[in-house]
Amino acid sequence: MKANTFVGLSLSLLATLFLPGPLAPVAPDADKDTAFRWLDANEEAMRRVSLSIWNTPELALHEYKSSRELMAYLEANGFHLEKGVAGMPTAFIANYGSGKPVIAIYGEYDALVALSQKAVGSPGPVIEGAPGHGCGHNLIGAGAAGAAVAVSKWMEAATIKGTLRYYGTPAEEAIGGKGYMLEAGVFRDVDALIGWHPQDVTTASFQYSKAVASVRFKFKGVAAHASSAPQLGRSALKGVELTDIGVNFMREHIKEDARIHSVITNGGGQPNVVPAAAESWYYIRANKHEDVADMFEWVSEIARGAAMMTRTQVEIIVDDDSYQVLPNRAIAEAMDRNLRVVGPPKFSEEEKATARRMQEPLKKNIEIPLSERIEPLPETPGQGAFSTDMGNVSWNVPSQEFEVATYPYGAPIHSWQVTACSGMSIGQKGMMVAAKTLAATAIDLFKNPSLVETAKKDFEERKKGHPFHLLTPPNRRPPVFPESQ
Amino acid sequence: MKANTFVGLSLSLLATLFLPGPLAPVAPDADKDTAFRWLDANEEAMRRVSLSIWNTPELALHEYKSSRELMAYLEANGFHLEKGVAGMPTAFIANYGSGKPVIAIYGEYDALVALSQKAVGSPGPVIEGAPGHGCGHNLIGAGAAGAAVAVSKWMEAATIKGTLRYYGTPAEEAIGGKGYMLEAGVFRDVDALIGWHPQDVTTASFQYSKAVASVRFKFKGVAAHASSAPQLGRSALKGVELTDIGVNFMREHIKEDARIHSVITNGGGQPNVVPAAAESWYYIRANKHEDVADMFEWVSEIARGAAMMTRTQVEIIVDDDSYQVLPNRAIAEAMDRNLRVVGPPKFSEEEKATARRMQEPLKKNIEIPLSERIEPLPETPGQGAFSTDMGNVSWNVPSQEFEVATYPYGAPIHSWQVTACSGMSIGQKGMMVAAKTLAATAIDLFKNPSLVETAKKDFEERKKGHPFHLLTPPNRRPPVFPESQ
Amino acid sequence: MKANTFVGLSLSLLATLFLPGPLAPVAPDADKDTAFRWLDANEEAMRRVSLSIWNTPELALHEYKSSRELMAYLEANGFHLEKGVAGMPTAFIANYGSGKPVIAIYGEYDALVALSQKAVGSPGPVIEGAPGHGCGHNLIGAGAAGAAVAVSKWMEAATIKGTLRYYGTPAEEAIGGKGYMLEAGVFRDVDALIGWHPQDVTTASFQYSKAVASVRFKFKGVAAHASSAPQLGRSALKGVELTDIGVNFMREHIKEDARIHSVITNGGGQPNVVPAAAESWYYIRANKHEDVADMFEWVSEIARGAAMMTRTQVEIIVDDDSYQVLPNRAIAEAMDRNLRVVGPPKFSEEEKATARRMQEPLKKNIEIPLSERIEPLPETPGQGAFSTDMGNVSWNVPSQEFEVATYPYGAPIHSWQVTACSGMSIGQKGMMVAAKTLAATAIDLFKNPSLVETAKKDFEERKKGHPFHLLTPPNRRPPVFPESQ
Amino acid sequence: MKANTFVGLSLSLLATLFLPGPLAPVAPDADKDTAFRWLDANEEAMRRVSLSIWNTPELALHEYKSSRELMAYLEANGFHLEKGVAGMPTAFIANYGSGKPVIAIYGEYDALVALSQKAVGSPGPVIEGAPGHGCGHNLIGAGAAGAAVAVSKWMEAATIKGTLRYYGTPAEEAIGGKGYMLEAGVFRDVDALIGWHPQDVTTASFQYSKAVASVRFKFKGVAAHASSAPQLGRSALKGVELTDIGVNFMREHIKEDARIHSVITNGGGQPNVVPAAAESWYYIRANKHEDVADMFEWVSEIARGAAMMTRTQVEIIVDDDSYQVLPNRAIAEAMDRNLRVVGPPKFSEEEKATARRMQEPLKKNIEIPLSERIEPLPETPGQGAFSTDMGNVSWNVPSQEFEVATYPYGAPIHSWQVTACSGMSIGQKGMMVAAKTLAATAIDLFKNPSLVETAKKDFEERKKGHPFHLLTPPNRRPPVFPESQ
Repeated sequence: MKANTFVGLSLSLLATLFLPGPLAPVAPDADKDTAFRWLDANEEAMRRVSLSIWNTPELALHEYKSSRELMAYLEANGFHLEKGVAGMPTAFIANYGSGKPVIAIYGEYDALVALSQKAVGSPGPVIEGAPGHGCGHNLIGAGAAGAAVAVSKWMEAATIKGTLRYYGTPAEEAIGGKGYMLEAGVFRDVDALIGWHPQDVTTASFQYSKAVASVRFKFKGVAAHASSAPQLGRSALKGVELTDIGVNFMREHIKEDARIHSVITNGGGQPNVVPAAAESWYYIRANKHEDVADMFEWVSEIARGAAMMTRTQVEIIVDDDSYQVLPNRAIAEAMDRNLRVVGPPKFSEEEKATARRMQEPLKKNIEIPLSERIEPLPETPGQGAFSTDMGNVSWNVPSQEFEVATYPYGAPIHSWQVTACSGMSIGQKGMMVAAKTLAATAIDLFKNPSLVETAKKDFEERKKGHPFHLLTPPNRRPPVFPESQ
Repeated sequence: MKANTFVGLSLSLLATLFLPGPLAPVAPDADKDTAFRWLDANEEAMRRVSLSIWNTPELALHEYKSSRELMAYLEANGFHLEKGVAGMPTAFIANYGSGKPVIAIYGEYDALVALSQKAVGSPGPVIEGAPGHGCGHNLIGAGAAGAAVAVSKWMEAATIKGTLRYYGTPAEEAIGGKGYMLEAGVFRDVDALIGWHPQDVTTASFQYSKAVASVRFKFKGVAAHASSAPQLGRSALKGVELTDIGVNFMREHIKEDARIHSVITNGGGQPNVVPAAAESWYYIRANKHEDVADMFEWVSEIARGAAMMTRTQVEIIVDDDSYQVLPNRAIAEAMDRNLRVVGPPKFSEEEKATARRMQEPLKKNIEIPLSERIEPLPETPGQGAFSTDMGNVSWNVPSQEFEVATYPYGAPIHSWQVTACSGMSIGQKGMMVAAKTLAATAIDLFKNPSLVETAKKDFEERKKGHPFHLLTPPNRRPPVFPESQ
Repeated sequence: MKANTFVGLSLSLLATLFLPGPLAPVAPDADKDTAFRWLDANEEAMRRVSLSIWNTPELALHEYKSSRELMAYLEANGFHLEKGVAGMPTAFIANYGSGKPVIAIYGEYDALVALSQKAVGSPGPVIEGAPGHGCGHNLIGAGAAGAAVAVSKWMEAATIKGTLRYYGTPAEEAIGGKGYMLEAGVFRDVDALIGWHPQDVTTASFQYSKAVASVRFKFKGVAAHASSAPQLGRSALKGVELTDIGVNFMREHIKEDARIHSVITNGGGQPNVVPAAAESWYYIRANKHEDVADMFEWVSEIARGAAMMTRTQVEIIVDDDSYQVLPNRAIAEAMDRNLRVVGPPKFSEEEKATARRMQEPLKKNIEIPLSERIEPLPETPGQGAFSTDMGNVSWNVPSQEFEVATYPYGAPIHSWQVTACSGMSIGQKGMMVAAKTLAATAIDLFKNPSLVETAKKDFEERKKGHPFHLLTPPNRRPPVFPESQ
Repeated sequence: MKANTFVGLSLSLLATLFLPGPLAPVAPDADKDTAFRWLDANEEAMRRVSLSIWNTPELALHEYKSSRELMAYLEANGFHLEKGVAGMPTAFIANYGSGKPVIAIYGEYDALVALSQKAVGSPGPVIEGAPGHGCGHNLIGAGAAGAAVAVSKWMEAATIKGTLRYYGTPAEEAIGGKGYMLEAGVFRDVDALIGWHPQDVTTASFQYSKAVASVRFKFKGVAAHASSAPQLGRSALKGVELTDIGVNFMREHIKEDARIHSVITNGGGQPNVVPAAAESWYYIRANKHEDVADMFEWVSEIARGAAMMTRTQVEIIVDDDSYQVLPNRAIAEAMDRNLRVVGPPKFSEEEKATARRMQEPLKKNIEIPLSERIEPLPETPGQGAFSTDMGNVSWNVPSQEFEVATYPYGAPIHSWQVTACSGMSIGQKGMMVAAKTLAATAIDLFKNPSLVETAKKDFEERKKGHPFHLLTPPNRRPPVFPESQ
């Protein structure tokens, strides 16, 4: 669900807004070196896990094999598992150590509809129409797991106190697994939560996302024969359409950063029957959740107005509600430092040639095949147009993520290029940079209580004056799909 | 407000639906002859009144000169006047005699906007843009007045007991003066009310009209600069437009005979300000008032839904509400008989040549220049598409009217052709036929208590099961426009 | 596709419009008696065919078993088969005899979606969600086949010259199989075509239906991420919606008898992508095909205007176009006489009790459980609100059908009540009346060349001035669905 | 037509974006002192001119008295007049000197509808509903004229070569007089054009405005009686409404900075007639004119689509088309320096108390009654949401303006507060600061050819790649309103 709008920013606004400034020289660090060495030595196992997930791409809430793969890896490396949390069979928690602080890393592993693609430089599915890892979640899941194990090895060696935790979070692409996990209370004791995401650039992603609510409007009318007795019918479809019209009329009067978009998921049966049932599905977005909440109220009034106009009934169902991601300055700075310690991924001439072939269909005349630099850390947070299920978690736990280049510069997320690279050496290289950076940042958090403290202060500061109140009904339950054989 | 939809009917439906049947031979009648002779002898005075009104066409509620002309004529002929009734300076009642029965004739005399036209066979205004008698109300007012005087002369001569009354009813074209008069109670003691209307055919108009409500939807929003702060504005115009959209969406689900039509009377000021005020004006019609009332409720819900959608307020104002005209079989039969006694108007070759010239711009290849026949009385009532302020009166008093040819066959009502003929001999001839028929029918009503009785029974029968309940607010007051000098 | 709007007519308009008049006494007829006796003797075989079709309800173009059942019956009785005509595997023609005249009977046998119902007096499916014979086509197919065989037996016995033909016409409920057969030329040599339909009354159905065009509007836009780049998207769904709005705005300006109704068959995918594809499906109806053609042109302009408004493209696909059914006076009179010879179905007390139980959920307080009378033949044709694939055929061959009561009075067509009765003795009784009436009418047509001649004259008269020109593309081909195992 | 959106900027964005930096010390300048002394000595005459215009507020193109007042003042001070330029009786040019360079100052003097207000601290019109100087153009006209004369005195004294020109530009509030003057070629030889505008802050207004096109959509349909023959009518109003709907549907797909807003200027006559004529009036705005041109094309396609949908015709009339104002860095820097030399207006305690009273109805809790500081000059141009007829001129002549505080901080432009202050000492003080700053900047331009050169380079740089092409028809003529007596 994450669009690479950061690219646009990096090319235009960033140039003027962000002052890179001279970077402080980075001192060598024996603790991090321990983790880096372990990762280098165990790269092959991580690669195998990431490719195993890539080879069996599973859709949201269907990630049975993928989650088992990750659980097996973590358990084999001494983590204690908690399976099927928050009512989702494919969600899990893996713990190492105990007590405070609790430093957590999250992993994702769900695939996308119809993005099946071979691990080659030209388009072509493995299985036509099958799912594919077009968002690189196989790299996230495996990279984060490798990082967790590396940190646990260091903790063991350095007898570090505290809990290291890996969150196996399903369904990022669809219903937002992290939201259900948050509501189940499983993040309650976490001091800091970190993660990463594949991108076409490498950066400590210091930015807000958009908040979003996913809402369905189910209209109920009265069926009637549309030719012989239209006056007896009350059209649910007209309710749906008048809601859309009302929303389009509303657009002039909402903020520039707001976005409302929808589809009609049920538009009636046959023309000769006045439709008694119809449904639309809306996303309501804005930079701030309070604007989403206001607009949700207004759009709901529009739907109720449409029901009144058409003498039908409307049921309003909020399926999901995500706050904008709260970035965390302290952790972002730590990530930025660690990225510079680890260094950006370096690609071979062959990999670059492949990337150039992948860029060709984009017709954008892009000069750089693969990013090999680290973007400057902006002074003030950027603003993305994407939304993610990290949003709500980031309002409850100090959280931050970074991005590492794993596919050709300028390629859109959710494309065959991303799927392909997520199964190739290009993606693996990015994953290793990510694993090291995650490990180094976790080590920073374990070693420096003041970092955790500063992160918490930044977190509290950004939340101030903005209550956290979701539009979704309390005690909602995720759907469960049994594993197919 | 009366469209000549009867023409269409007379040419198509009537042919199949109405069985003319053999007409009973009509016996000579000394009473009616008295009246007819008086009318023939006094035609010139009536002509003068009708032309005087025609020459000073006055819009609804501005008919100061026209009403004075009629009052003077009636007073001079022995009628007692009651002026400025029902809060309208140009409404009046003229009485002759006293006691029961009360037989009444109504007259109209308001003109139409921008229909100024010379009394000639080709288009051309007397004063560009000025009002004109495009509905022939000058003929109605004068013809009815002449009939009333003729009947009073017969009553005097024959010492007939009872009250003969002339209702001077203003503003038929605009707000419906008769409605205000009805609500003021001035029709309460009437036993039968008769009248006539110019047309392109001659017929006892045995038909229903449509019921109609005239409604305004006043929206109130919030002004804001449309460029710098559109998000602070709430557009009243969008409320108006969404009402229109909702009504168009409703059309599929209303009865075939229903009609809803509207204009926007206030669509905002300058584009750079979000309109804080806007207004639309609706007519809601159907063959039955109960359907109008239902649709008024629905359209009101649509307007309220539109206000909800746009976060504006709406005020719903019913300016007028007219029931469909209830025809009266007994009186219609009397009128049909009397029309046949009097005979249709007969036109000269010159008049016919003029009428043919007037028909040319209509491009309809009409064979008949001027109707010189009497249409058959239909067995069951026809259904017109027009509405009139006689509607409500006809639900409270047994009422009936007929129509006499006063302008070229096929010409539309509210056209320059009608204005012209209403000031020419063509119109005068029709007026004389009308005056005699009105007089004869009044004489029938005075002489035959059983006719009044049958009329009342028919009246009660048609109303049965249909309560009379207006959508207009109680105690509404007509606007008053002072006489300009 | 046939709604029982006739019921409404029989209760209201018919009462005033149609004059029954004294019926001519009917003389005994040995030819018809031959056919009637054969039918009585062979009722059981017909019953078996009708129940076999009823027990394996097959949807439009899937009627493999049902058509084989009918073909086997006709072939076994000496008819020559032509299978898979007009590109439809389930369409067939069965011939008996040769040369002129060609008198034809049509049969139908497709079922309806989700109308599965047990042959009992209370609601309850055989298989939840499965198809069912809610329009009684199993009775039509079997009854018509029995009639054909009975007539062939008489032809054989009486050595009658000419061709007797049975048209096995699939997909009446969906795409209109008869239309494709007509376009394939298979009706070209027919002198008269007769048929029947189950109803809640028994009548020579002397009426027009509505003409109808079935049209799809496929819009193509440009996909874009609806949050990060909505300005790059062009919404196909908005094209669909603006077409709907335009059509609702058009409604005020179409004729009273016109009907336009639609559904949205593709309303986009996920809200976060601007829909690049969307589709709506319209029925455009009116009493006259020329009005349908005019409105189709207007609606197409609306769709093109919507494409222009949204900068999308629209493809307009006319799937089907049916003229209003032309009734045939001569054949309708013959049918009316024959119905009176045969007599209406007579039901047992038990059957009536069952019918009453079936009427209960209708909550209409209907007095008659099952109609046992024959409605009067109207003087002038009625006007139904339904449409059927007989429409186009009736503009190319003199055609007429009648209706026989086969289910409870007042029950709607396409209801569980109809499905149930079509598998019960109630339906069988109606089917036998129908078979006899069809046989008698065919015998009339074979025996009286003047009847065929009068039918042709009436046919030519009704078509006069109205060219037959379909909106569907030439050489269109029906879809083919292979038989599932 | 100029909204004070700068205020918002000065309070929020400016704080972060603009780096004030240390100001260079300003050396004394004998040339400017000459002009300043003349202005101080002749303040009373300027005051009289400004109050005379304020006392006879005249609407756009009606500024006969106001323009005469200014012409008389300039002529009396040695300027040569060119009257009635560009077809506008109230436009004029006043020249002093000759040859190159040509340095020009513009003045405005039209008033606003219904903003009549006394020169006091509480709301109350001089004449209810009469025009008023709610945009302070009386101060612009007189202040600019005073500055021109002061500069001419210096030129005379210092024997400076070149032409000093005063442009009397009418109708800024309505049709944009400067646009017609530009098209008449009267700005062709100007090297630099400067001006000022009253505001609630003092600043060298270094910012872009929005481009805007003013467009009318005139629909023509077919009238018909809406009850008896709606099918014959084609509603022009529906064309107008469908255009509005199409535009609202378009909103999702335009850029964030775009603004489209409209009103309905003709919504039909009476409901019973299908409207044959209707009209809407649109403003189409964006930060860049090329986006306005694109959107104009799209909105025009929407209107044509609406005409197609409703079977009406549409005429599209572009009344005005203004590019965004191009700011000029070189001149803005000179203005900023001169403002700091002159110093911001300083107000008395009494004036501040009055201003506080005027702020009360705004209910904004504003701390500053009147701004007495100079805003920092932003590094990069700001972006206003307003539009002005300086837009097109600024694409043809290097132009820049500044703003001086002349009314209470936080008061909206076009308010009674602005009208009042424009007739009070508060406004006069601002006008004097403006006159001195204009004079000083003109002197800079005359003395430093390199400043003119730099201004031209900046001008050329900003235009590069953006052709100047107006949407208005060539050779358009302004309307002329004769002077009323």
